[in-house]
Amino acid sequence: MVDEVKLYGSTGDSPYVCRVDIALNLKGVKYDVIKEDLKNKSDDLLKYNPIHKEVPVFVHNGKPICDSLVIVEYIDQVWEGYPILPVDPYDKAVARFWAKFIDGTCIPATFKVFGNVGDEQVLAEAYEKLQILENELKVKGTKYFGGDNINIVDIAADYIAYWLGMIEDTTEIKIVTKDKFPKITEWAENFINCQVVKEVLPPKFEVPKEELLAYFKQRFGKA
Amino acid sequence: MVDEVKLYGSTGDSPYVCRVDIALNLKGVKYDVIKEDLKNKSDDLLKYNPIHKEVPVFVHNGKPICDSLVIVEYIDQVWEGYPILPVDPYDKAVARFWAKFIDGTCIPATFKVFGNVGDEQVLAEAYEKLQILENELKVKGTKYFGGDNINIVDIAADYIAYWLGMIEDTTEIKIVTKDKFPKITEWAENFINCQVVKEVLPPKFEVPKEELLAYFKQRFGKA
Repeated sequence: MVDEVKLYGSTGDSPYVCRVDIALNLKGVKYDVIKEDLKNKSDDLLKYNPIHKEVPVFVHNGKPICDSLVIVEYIDQVWEGYPILPVDPYDKAVARFWAKFIDGTCIPATFKVFGNVGDEQVLAEAYEKLQILENELKVKGTKYFGGDNINIVDIAADYIAYWLGMIEDTTEIKIVTKDKFPKITEWAENFINCQVVKEVLPPKFEVPKEELLAYFKQRFGKA
Repeated sequence: MVDEVKLYGSTGDSPYVCRVDIALNLKGVKYDVIKEDLKNKSDDLLKYNPIHKEVPVFVHNGKPICDSLVIVEYIDQVWEGYPILPVDPYDKAVARFWAKFIDGTCIPATFKVFGNVGDEQVLAEAYEKLQILENELKVKGTKYFGGDNINIVDIAADYIAYWLGMIEDTTEIKIVTKDKFPKITEWAENFINCQVVKEVLPPKFEVPKEELLAYFKQRFGKA
């Protein structure tokens, strides 16, 4: 049987969707992309992801999986080849810890900065979380979180490598500078220049600054 | 070599620590418990979990792992016997999705209720998330989320089965009633009466109502 592999994404692809693109690309899996208009979600999307109603949704031979990191783990287990998670159980646990820290702590902390412009405490919290990543890269001394090659931790951090810079450029609020976070800056450059990543990054977006800030304020503002 | 297995917990054990107790109990692993005073954290705890500075910390042959669900996955992979996660990759992904939904969405939604007493919108959001669990149990029609036996999803939900009721009793704010959530109520009873769970549940706590509400307000209040 030939595998039927579908990925429901959004028209201006999100870091969450791209995580799945990168994982599939690493494994050399062919797949169909279905672009969703998130302002007018398809019946398929609502059927496959009735709880979060979000992309990405991954459908393998008719069976849907939701949540980008859950999908990446599934892909790693089902397809042979490139190891996206370390094979050793301890190293695997450590990688999961970092992926979860980036996903659940670091990324929301930077979202909050754009939702609470001028709030020094919110900015200090984002700096504190990013400093932990900076230190981890310094201690490891490797090109990627995964070592010589990217793994699930790098994939989890794709937002920091690419989208964060775009948001910073648009809003003119700079969080990750070369001065303050030299290791993260270096890692980000390595990551987006990694062939398998470069192939799936979406074009840089152009959204008016006010619209972008209004979005973050509404979703991540304190009030 | 004999395995050295240590679990750093807290004096009045938390649902997060208990997840690890349950997993170890399911596998029949012998382990040492080190009780932490969270108001005066030990050097070991700060060394092993410098990022979150929280329990549980699991130390296997000198190597630390943090984050309760990451620890549970590690235990399932390292020790043979009872399968805590389904073996099939698709079923495993679905279990991970639900465990994450409970951990990252359902539990914070109920915490918020106690931190924002009287806020109807916060209560409605908690109801909405719990209703998703209620429906899932109804559709499955099984004794546990895991089927005839508990799995990682049930373990992730231990807070809802046991601690939530204690907090409800103390604060006199009832969220999960038999009327509104009959399936969750039934599941909770089954879960806490499951031998392997019963053995590790901590004694019911006695905290003054005001103190408990003040804690939730400070940590999960809107302001």
